[in-house]
Amino acid sequence: MEAISSVQNPRIKAWKKLQKKRERDRSDLFLVEGEHLVEEALKASVKVKVIIIREDRDIPKRWLVEDVELVYVTERVMAELAETETPQGMIAVCEKPAAENILFESGRYLLLDRIQDPGNLGSMLRTAEAAGLEGVIFGEGCADPFNGKVVRSTQGAIFYIDVQQMDLHDAVDRCRENGVPVFGTSLNGSTFSAIEPQESFALLMGNEGAGVEPGLLEKTDQNLYIPIYGEAESLNVGAAAGILIYHLRGD
Amino acid sequence: MEAISSVQNPRIKAWKKLQKKRERDRSDLFLVEGEHLVEEALKASVKVKVIIIREDRDIPKRWLVEDVELVYVTERVMAELAETETPQGMIAVCEKPAAENILFESGRYLLLDRIQDPGNLGSMLRTAEAAGLEGVIFGEGCADPFNGKVVRSTQGAIFYIDVQQMDLHDAVDRCRENGVPVFGTSLNGSTFSAIEPQESFALLMGNEGAGVEPGLLEKTDQNLYIPIYGEAESLNVGAAAGILIYHLRGD
Repeated sequence: MEAISSVQNPRIKAWKKLQKKRERDRSDLFLVEGEHLVEEALKASVKVKVIIIREDRDIPKRWLVEDVELVYVTERVMAELAETETPQGMIAVCEKPAAENILFESGRYLLLDRIQDPGNLGSMLRTAEAAGLEGVIFGEGCADPFNGKVVRSTQGAIFYIDVQQMDLHDAVDRCRENGVPVFGTSLNGSTFSAIEPQESFALLMGNEGAGVEPGLLEKTDQNLYIPIYGEAESLNVGAAAGILIYHLRGD
Repeated sequence: MEAISSVQNPRIKAWKKLQKKRERDRSDLFLVEGEHLVEEALKASVKVKVIIIREDRDIPKRWLVEDVELVYVTERVMAELAETETPQGMIAVCEKPAAENILFESGRYLLLDRIQDPGNLGSMLRTAEAAGLEGVIFGEGCADPFNGKVVRSTQGAIFYIDVQQMDLHDAVDRCRENGVPVFGTSLNGSTFSAIEPQESFALLMGNEGAGVEPGLLEKTDQNLYIPIYGEAESLNVGAAAGILIYHLRGD
């Protein structure tokens, strides 16, 4: 099979556009880069449409599955499509999973208010999936969950956890109507370790600089605080989410 | 005062070299970038030698302190010295704090085995400082704690916590001799939440891919595991460190 060698090739140009949120939103497709992640996408229920391979790479035999098109490209074309500095030479074009309509009747949820850093978002999705949460809600102003850096930071967890974008006031209201306790995070909150583990909960984490929107904090059942024993003002939001999720979940 | 406009200026060239670990090791200096971090460095006990300012920026009056030299530079020179994509126009040249000689007689410590990602290292230093740990030990093969991205990810916590580079086998041996219990982290470990909070402890976190070196895991008092309820194989190391540090510390 001949490798595509031109970055002007219309398919290459179309895939390159998937590096932008607008095009991911329009097409419901996203890019998955790197051998481990492509492997995870194939193992998960994600629909892989195309695997793009640099011509010098071998393809694992288990990747030769029906309905997945293989496209070989030159090193130059791969460098154009890859978002990492030292590309591994494998990128999958995947369909975004259909958004679940989360009802918040019971279960455990993570609600994200304007989280900006893709590494923090990826770490939180990974923790939420590992802890067995039912879903992660992205409020307006969060970075896109299908951003390449977010996807890579999840180490594949994004293929397994339900992600939904919705207004956080609506999400909090629904939780409260259904008796799912909502916990905000605030420097003025109660020490988290005094709260017992919960069968159902929604945990609300906020922007790296500004924290959770005050209007949301007023609507919660309780706001939590992680005690600081040093000079730091706060913790990294990904570390804080890990501490709170595993505490609220219990064993 | 005239702004330095040439990237060939010998002082600019010398400061630029501080982006490399070798030069930081040789000179015992490091760079602190951004207004908030420079402010934190001045507030902390860190020795600030020079503040480099882009000529269009105003300098806060409280920064005009004895022993700190101010150097103005053009936008082009600032772009050369800055490591961030949108520089704030302020960089401090600081002396590394003198390495404490940690004795491990009692207290709480974080031991890091070949942690590679600067964001993860920064997050862990920030959590360790926030939780009031006595020190963080960098084993061989870790990224440099004075790497610019690490420093920025600590949000200033690195100015307040003792950091020491040493052989981890030596550190573990000293802890055990002094009766400080050492906890490794391993997929074959015991569930962390069964362990009671500890007055003194050393927690050993390992490389993002390979985990803690098996030879070290054999020497610990106990190895801990964070239960996974989803499909993920593991957690982000910064999130995992947060969960374990706050659990072991207790209230």
